[in-house]
Amino acid sequence: MPHNPVEKTPVTILGLGAMGTALARAWLAAGHPLTVWNRTPARAAALAAEGARVADTAAEAVAANTLTVVCLLDDASVGEVLAGTDLTGRDLVNLTTGTPAQARARAEWARARGARYLDGGIMAVPPIIGVPETGGYVFYSGPRELFDRHRATLGVPAGTTYVGEDPGFAALHDVALLSAMYGMFAGVAHAFALISKEDIDPAALAPLLADWLAAMAPAVHQTADRLRSGDYTKGVVSSLAMQVAGTPTFLSTAEQQGVSPELLAPYFELIRRRLAEGGGEEDVTGVIDLLVR
Amino acid sequence: MPHNPVEKTPVTILGLGAMGTALARAWLAAGHPLTVWNRTPARAAALAAEGARVADTAAEAVAANTLTVVCLLDDASVGEVLAGTDLTGRDLVNLTTGTPAQARARAEWARARGARYLDGGIMAVPPIIGVPETGGYVFYSGPRELFDRHRATLGVPAGTTYVGEDPGFAALHDVALLSAMYGMFAGVAHAFALISKEDIDPAALAPLLADWLAAMAPAVHQTADRLRSGDYTKGVVSSLAMQVAGTPTFLSTAEQQGVSPELLAPYFELIRRRLAEGGGEEDVTGVIDLLVR
Ligand SMILES: NC(=O)c1ccc[n+]([C@@H]2O[C@H](COP(=O)([O-])OP(=O)(O)OC[C@H]3O[C@@H](n4cnc5c(N)ncnc54)[C@H](OP(=O)(O)O)[C@@H]3O)[C@@H](O)[C@H]2O)c1
Ligand SMILES: NC(=O)c1ccc[n+]([C@@H]2O[C@H](COP(=O)([O-])OP(=O)(O)OC[C@H]3O[C@@H](n4cnc5c(N)ncnc54)[C@H](OP(=O)(O)O)[C@@H]3O)[C@@H](O)[C@H]2O)c1
Repeated sequence: MPHNPVEKTPVTILGLGAMGTALARAWLAAGHPLTVWNRTPARAAALAAEGARVADTAAEAVAANTLTVVCLLDDASVGEVLAGTDLTGRDLVNLTTGTPAQARARAEWARARGARYLDGGIMAVPPIIGVPETGGYVFYSGPRELFDRHRATLGVPAGTTYVGEDPGFAALHDVALLSAMYGMFAGVAHAFALISKEDIDPAALAPLLADWLAAMAPAVHQTADRLRSGDYTKGVVSSLAMQVAGTPTFLSTAEQQGVSPELLAPYFELIRRRLAEGGGEEDVTGVIDLLVR
Repeated sequence: MPHNPVEKTPVTILGLGAMGTALARAWLAAGHPLTVWNRTPARAAALAAEGARVADTAAEAVAANTLTVVCLLDDASVGEVLAGTDLTGRDLVNLTTGTPAQARARAEWARARGARYLDGGIMAVPPIIGVPETGGYVFYSGPRELFDRHRATLGVPAGTTYVGEDPGFAALHDVALLSAMYGMFAGVAHAFALISKEDIDPAALAPLLADWLAAMAPAVHQTADRLRSGDYTKGVVSSLAMQVAGTPTFLSTAEQQGVSPELLAPYFELIRRRLAEGGGEEDVTGVIDLLVR
């Protein structure tokens, strides 16, 4: 075998589901020595053929390299899998989806076992892992120097976005972005439902919807500015009062088209409440305050 | 006064609120002879100084030109204002926001009074009316030949998008896009609420949110394809089963951050119902079917 002119950091991966396998392939393709382990050994076979070393136990896999990446179903499975491993002096990067509280507790748990810990939240799906320029990336939080040390290696399967020392911040950013996306998906579902009984091709509505949503997404910058300044009224173009006045048109249209208002109504209820509390000259930023207890 | 080398279509505008005034300015600036009327006459004064002819009554304004554009508060005010006018042989373009049913009824009403009728839905706010290249536009529906005849004139204040002969389709497209936008705003409100008690700058979250939403918006094309084919399972990357399994993380995170789940929960309830009905291998398209009665 030819000598590798640049030493690539060896990586251990625990968990070879759809995501763990995609991560493994990306590191293998980039020439990183790779040790893998999965509860169901059969899932490691293809990777072994591609050059990965397959460990018999999670403990053996963790012992093989300083850097261990965990990508399992959930936080409980992370606890189970790592229970029998020696984490002393290890750099543990947990890419398993969870809540900020789970990430913080897991960071504390790892620290108590002598490991350094980074938490990650993957903003990508397996098919785009390892494919350059897709825009997919992973949020990381935990010690900055630990992130910097492994940044190049972590950047192989997807982009990296560091969001702070608090180990819960990666999960929080992950959940925040996906929550916003579900809101958008809810709105999109309502829009397609509205035309479903008409002679309108969904494929004709789609580009109008996509362009409109892309054009409206930058409103988040203005929302951020208003949250920082605390001024929700300056330079408002569409006042809350005007927007609340428009809601009957939306609800009547849903009714006429035989569409349940259940995905729209909660937001309309909140802007109505904010108006009732005196926010008529604001834009919609005040809804955020109503959500926080 | 120099002779105008190109005859510009004269336009009558009824309604000089924020939007009507912006429309009026755009046509004046482009050299269209303009007749205006507003219930409260004071709002016409500035436009008179800019060259508009001010009619004393709506009837006089409608009599002045073949093309009349109406931009009033709501459909009821349109009925009131047009009640005393002679619409015989007039081309009526109604840019007042309303429901598809209101637009259809108003089209029928106008036809019975001898007018040709186009309905419009304005996808813009007053500050971008008449400003080129902003992306703002107006949906139009009604007779194609009527739209084509006035297309150039209607294109002066904003782009034009013709969506069909059914006079209700402009309103339906308008409401569909704005409904989708409110869904996105709801998701964005939830996202900002999640970080509100943390040391995270909203202005740091904003670009992440904007980029993520813009990256996810094109999913509408896939949704349209699935609706057309009726196949909600082919090539699914994130199955409904997987997404439902992920919802506790979102709800727990909201709980941990002290954020009400009221804007997210209805969508999660719908994907859960679709899963219970056997849609586990689908993507989220089936939610649309659950919304339609
Ligand atoms: N797939 C995506 O689109 C995506 C996107 C972003 C983030 N993520 C996150 O990435 C993580 C992995 O997702 P995935 O798509 O790879 O899931 P997956 O295909 O369902 O794989 C789950 C993995 O967890 C293992 N596992 C589950 N319970 C276990 C236990 N008690 N003990 C040991 N191993 C256990 C499974 O092992 P067996 O093979 O033995 O069952 C398998 O390796 C999840 O946290 C997910 O939220 C996924
Ligand atoms: N502003 C926007 O961002 C926006 C965006 C898209 C669409 N639109 C739509 O454009 C239309 C006009 O909006 P706008 O922003 O210009 O509203 P606005 O500033 O509130 O103006 C309302 C207009 O309607 C007139 N009006 C109300 N009730 C009337 C009645 N009973 N009889 C006669 N006139 C009456 C008002 O006359 P007075 O001056 O005498 O009160 C005024 O000219 C609405 O349908 C709105 O939904 C607006």
